[in-house]
Amino acid sequence: MELFTYYRSTSSYRVRLALALKGLDYRAVPVNLLSGEQHLPAYLAVNPQGRVPALRTENGQVLVQSAAIIEYLEQVYPEPALLPADAAARARVRGVAALIGCDVHPLHNVSVLNRLRACGFDEPAVYQWVQHWIGHGLQAVEQLLDDQGWCFGATPGLADVYLVAQLYAAQRFGLELSGYPRIARVAALAAQHPQWQAAHPARQADAPAQ
Amino acid sequence: MELFTYYRSTSSYRVRLALALKGLDYRAVPVNLLSGEQHLPAYLAVNPQGRVPALRTENGQVLVQSAAIIEYLEQVYPEPALLPADAAARARVRGVAALIGCDVHPLHNVSVLNRLRACGFDEPAVYQWVQHWIGHGLQAVEQLLDDQGWCFGATPGLADVYLVAQLYAAQRFGLELSGYPRIARVAALAAQHPQWQAAHPARQADAPAQ
Repeated sequence: MELFTYYRSTSSYRVRLALALKGLDYRAVPVNLLSGEQHLPAYLAVNPQGRVPALRTENGQVLVQSAAIIEYLEQVYPEPALLPADAAARARVRGVAALIGCDVHPLHNVSVLNRLRACGFDEPAVYQWVQHWIGHGLQAVEQLLDDQGWCFGATPGLADVYLVAQLYAAQRFGLELSGYPRIARVAALAAQHPQWQAAHPARQADAPAQ
Repeated sequence: MELFTYYRSTSSYRVRLALALKGLDYRAVPVNLLSGEQHLPAYLAVNPQGRVPALRTENGQVLVQSAAIIEYLEQVYPEPALLPADAAARARVRGVAALIGCDVHPLHNVSVLNRLRACGFDEPAVYQWVQHWIGHGLQAVEQLLDDQGWCFGATPGLADVYLVAQLYAAQRFGLELSGYPRIARVAALAAQHPQWQAAHPARQADAPAQ
């Protein structure tokens, strides 16, 4: 498999985490969002939306959108499972993933922040915008999680993948986790697991040298 | 089942469409987003995020986030199916749904537009913001759809549910469909089907009288 990815992209990070948890090998193809590689014809031929991630499967099909890619991986490589079997339990897990994937991350991706700047936002206003939406989202997530273990249960799953990737962005934007004990507990669990660390933005080939 | 809904909410409309396509009965519980009912303690006890839709299942469980609710309905009430069986085909359908559900709709929901106003956007600037994101998203969707029938194939599915609900918002914000022949084709198919019309915002009990 080939993953079109950018080290700091939240949604690329989610897919890297899902691949890592399932122990799947892939080749990373970096797409530099800062230099605009996502808008070049070569990449638009892969994904007409000009966004990362995109996954080229073992059969050569190109899939787009992290939510669709991870559900594909879950179906084709079911073990270890990222979703429980019970329908309502799946909905709880997918609900937290969707809350982060729809109501938090899209409000602070590169293109939205650049649009805000073009509309006259200065950097402090951009920063406040991001903090507002991450704060609101994480407050709701905190209330939806279980009281122990990962987001839901003893093994990591889809909600953890979304949450951990989101926390990297949250911390870049200066958010403190002290008000979110359940979320902080999940972050601490992820920090102890080598699989999670291999997917971390700082560990990617396209990340700047430290 | 009980659906907490607001007539004009894009994500509530999606769930109403999924319920209608599957022929499922439910009781609509209107939540007035303009008067702020979603922030009252009675509703926050249903959904701590203070957003619609939420679905109370036949077993009394409350599910949140339209993507998670529709996947639940697909698992528990599999016929007619909103997703194909093949993993890569499912990913194509879910990819278009996620593009709309993550990269278009969240940028123009009520709370985001209100935040833009609070940040100094006047109404023409808000309008331009919405048109920008809907236009970008629909341009990408147009390239991902099949050349005939619904979004993908001869029967409507998850991508159609997302697209038709999004088009209602697009038309409220003055978007012309003439540049999007595939999307316009799907819109025309939906307009001919009575199930789709029953879920329309204008047909809901909480819609203002025409």
